[in-house]
Order: sequence, then C-alpha cells, then structure tokens
Amino acid sequence: MPVAQKFQIGLVQMSCSVQAEQNIAKAVLRIREAAARGAQIICLQELFRSQYFCRTEDHELFHLAEAIPGPSTETLGAVAKELGVVIIASLFERRASGLYHNTAAILNTDGAIAGIYRKMHIPDDPLYYEKFYFTPGDLGFLNFDTKFGRIGVLVCWDQWYPEAARLTALQGADILFYPTAIGWHPAEKAVYGAAQVDAWKTIQRSHAIANGIYVAAVNRVGFEGGSTDTGIEFFGSSFIADPFGQVIAQASTDQEEILLAECDPARVEEVRRNWPFFRDRRIDAYQSIVNRFNDKRWDQ
Amino acid sequence: MPVAQKFQIGLVQMSCSVQAEQNIAKAVLRIREAAARGAQIICLQELFRSQYFCRTEDHELFHLAEAIPGPSTETLGAVAKELGVVIIASLFERRASGLYHNTAAILNTDGAIAGIYRKMHIPDDPLYYEKFYFTPGDLGFLNFDTKFGRIGVLVCWDQWYPEAARLTALQGADILFYPTAIGWHPAEKAVYGAAQVDAWKTIQRSHAIANGIYVAAVNRVGFEGGSTDTGIEFFGSSFIADPFGQVIAQASTDQEEILLAECDPARVEEVRRNWPFFRDRRIDAYQSIVNRFNDKRWDQ
Repeated sequence: MPVAQKFQIGLVQMSCSVQAEQNIAKAVLRIREAAARGAQIICLQELFRSQYFCRTEDHELFHLAEAIPGPSTETLGAVAKELGVVIIASLFERRASGLYHNTAAILNTDGAIAGIYRKMHIPDDPLYYEKFYFTPGDLGFLNFDTKFGRIGVLVCWDQWYPEAARLTALQGADILFYPTAIGWHPAEKAVYGAAQVDAWKTIQRSHAIANGIYVAAVNRVGFEGGSTDTGIEFFGSSFIADPFGQVIAQASTDQEEILLAECDPARVEEVRRNWPFFRDRRIDAYQSIVNRFNDKRWDQ
Repeated sequence: MPVAQKFQIGLVQMSCSVQAEQNIAKAVLRIREAAARGAQIICLQELFRSQYFCRTEDHELFHLAEAIPGPSTETLGAVAKELGVVIIASLFERRASGLYHNTAAILNTDGAIAGIYRKMHIPDDPLYYEKFYFTPGDLGFLNFDTKFGRIGVLVCWDQWYPEAARLTALQGADILFYPTAIGWHPAEKAVYGAAQVDAWKTIQRSHAIANGIYVAAVNRVGFEGGSTDTGIEFFGSSFIADPFGQVIAQASTDQEEILLAECDPARVEEVRRNWPFFRDRRIDAYQSIVNRFNDKRWDQ
C-alpha cells in the first residue's frame, strides 16, 4: 500500500429548519462554497435534511425517510459530479416497510454511490430516542475508495466506541469522518455543558492518536424544539484532528461554518513510524472484547 | 455487583538515582507520607527501583531484575501491612534464565501479593529498547480485588491501546492504574514536547470516557543519562481523571509530588447511567479486531 496523495476536506456545520427543501438547498449552497474554496471531500452533518426528529417517538416521522438510492442521493450525486467532489451525506434510510436505518451515503466524483455505511451503534436517551427509529447497521465497519483517497465513515454515537474507530482504521483509511447531531439539554448546559463538549472532543481525538489517522467530526448548530424541556441546543464544535490528535481546524459552538483542512497521508506515515502502535497490538489477547462483560469468576 | 465504597488513592511521582537502595528508601518514605495523608491505594511509577535502564541494550543490566516474590515485594509487603494500604509496585521480574518481564505486583493490606500483571504491550524505539529486556506478558488483562476495591493495572505502553483499557474495564474495576516511564528526547522537546504530553494525557482520559472509569497515571521526573543524545527528560504530569475524563488531580512536569484523590464508585454508576456506552457495544461485529490489519480485498 503506497502513501496516497494529499487531499482537501470540507465540513459543513449548519442549522436546520423544519423544511427539508430548505435544508437541502442550504447544504448544496454550502457544498458549492466549500468546493470553490478547494474542498475535495465534503461531509455534511448527521441527518442534515431535517431537524433532529428523534427528540420524540412519533410514527408519523417515518415519512421523513427515503430510499437509497433516492431523491437525496440523486440531487447530491449530480452536485458531486458537477463539482468533481466527493460528498458524504447522512440520511434517514427507508430500506423496507418497518425497516429503517441511519445511513451515510458516499457519493463519488462521477455522481455514483461509492458505498453506504449504516450506523452500527444506536443511542437511546431522553430526547435522543434513536432506537425507536433506527435498526442497528448490518454492514459492519467499512472503508470507501474515492477519487481522492480511501476514507472511513462512522456516525455520531459510534464516536464513543474505540472498537469502531480501530476496525475502520485497520482497513487502510487515512481519515475517519463522523457526521454528528449532539447538543445540550438546556437544563444541563450550565453544569455539564463544557465537560460534555470536552469529552466528545477528547474521545474522537483519541481515535486519531490510537490509530495515527485524521479525524473529522461535523455537528449541527441551533436550537431545535419548542421548549426548554423538549428542545436541544446543538453545540457545533466541528473539528479536524491530525494523526497525532492535534486539532488543525475548529468551529464555534453556535455559528454556521465551513471548516477546511488539508490532509496529508505522508503525515499518517510519519506519525505511525514514530509512535508505532499498530506494530505492537496483542492480537492474541483481544478475543474477549466480543463479550458483553467479562464477569465470569473462578467460582462459577 | 453492588456499588462499592469510596476509596482514596495516592500516586508517587519521583526522580530516581542509580542506587536501588536509595530509590526503594525514597519510595517507602513517600508511601508513608501518602498513607499519612489518607491514601489507601498507592501506586508507584514504572520501574521505580532503578533509573530507566532501557535507554541502552546492555546484557549486564539484567542483573537489575529480581524474582517475584522477592526482595522488593517483601519490603513493600511489610510496609503495606504495617500501614494497612494497598501498594502497586512496578518491577523488573526475573522469571527464569533468559525470561524477564515488566511486571506490576499488587500488594494487599495483609502484605500478601494480591496478584501480578505482566506488561502486555512492549515498545521499542530509540532510547526505549524494551523489546530487548521484556518478554510480552502472558497473563492477559486482569483485575485485582483489594481491601479497598477492585482495580485494574496496566503499564506504560499499554496506555496507547484502547483494547487493553476495555478488556480490563469489562472485568468490573472502578479504576485503571498506569505506572509509566515516558519522557522527552532533548532534541525533540522544543518541537514535539507539548504535543507528546497532550497526546499521552488525551489517550488515557479517553479510556476513562469510553469505559466510565477512573484513570490514574503516574510517571517519573528528572533527567537520566549522561548526554543530550542518550538521555531522557521524564515529563512527570501524573494525573487522575474521573469517569467522565475530567482531570481531578494534576502533577507538574518536573517536581517530585504525591498526588491524591478520592474515587467514588457511585460516580462510575452515575456516569454510565447517563452515557451508557456499555449497553450498546456491537459485540457481534468486533471479531476482526484480532486481525493484524484488515487488508483482504475483494479480488484476493
């Protein structure tokens, strides 16, 4: 596997309205702007086509889902082809009646779907009722070969799992993308807000460090929901970390932004030569990581 | 598994001379001080009994090794019993002729060895020639039941491996201890020094976050070696992180210190209830983490 070429990435951090058409139009506008500023691989935030609907459990909201291929991948595929860029689009996938996924589609520069990733780890917490909507992914952890290089894509809750980052990195990608929708409960922000953003950033930077790989996280901004009881203030903070975990681009907590960075696979090579963690993994001793909990005791 | 009681920990960050007797005497003095200040589980830095001898490959230096049980565990076991504390002691273990390990011994309050952990991941880089001295551990990742609670112990290079933290946490420990010996190459410090300490701290804080567990890292201080070409400036920076990755105690880069903190298993419970990562692990999809690299392709 030779060292690949440099590539430019762009992350679109934005707010969303309740109108899907408005969100798609805004996303396309920002993709055009990112491409004009040199971005070659452009990643949208999680479920950018709508507000974050998982705040409630409502059967009507399954109407927001669409097939893949479908309207969004057609629209964005045409844009990818026109601009000669790769687009990572997080969508609410309707796979069959009663079977829906939280799915990222990777659109290559020819407008075709290079592949899809179905979110593997599904959260379920107050205001994040995702287990109601999304069946856990069944495609495993994947890499995608694009015109500008091999990439890994994971989605939001996956970011808390070192296993997901490791399994994706071990396929050769130079970068992990994390489309995300995470925010503050208004009642928690004052006490826990800073620590939550810090934990979110730290765990993702740690994936860069553990695997010697670029990490790009893109999150939405804006308050969604009618009241402080049922609403979420999405905290943005999109960032790009280099393969040593150093942040090379950082967005605000509350503004729409396009975040750009150059990624150099030679830097991946350099970091992994100097701190060669892949060399020393004890693959003979990791088997029980597939257990739920290792609580078997000597007397059982 | 009921929620355990609170416990107090103490980390001994110190410099080492070339005289083993001096180092042991200093360690015992600091253990007494930590105990007097309330510490119940006291962790010494990696290979505290000597300077960090792995800076060169020298067959003579195997004389520094000792049996376990042996002189150090006898001395420290007596201190543990006298003070009613648990001591974690990182030692150079002579297991047999030509078979040596980097081993942590856990001494319980009765002075007996509660168990040993043999360092699983062994580095080998300029000035850290550990593969010459240490056979990789063959005991796997372990927990130890002490008077004050169940603990996990890993050693230095293990800290870069999320698998090691996960496999130890999955056995029920409320805290991971990392005795460590890491420092700056004098020629690298100006350019890379800050990023290296930051990466070291970030990866360990990430283990706290990913597993909802306390993490305590203890590192040595002081310059060892005759010249800037062959010497290492150990950067201290010992710290204790809570189960959300927040640093609750922090030592300097260059001073001898005793770092104390209270650890509350109820806090582990609280963090894991709120961000329940253990609930959603995709244990059906982690099998290939035991592969060296997942580079098998469709055409092979």
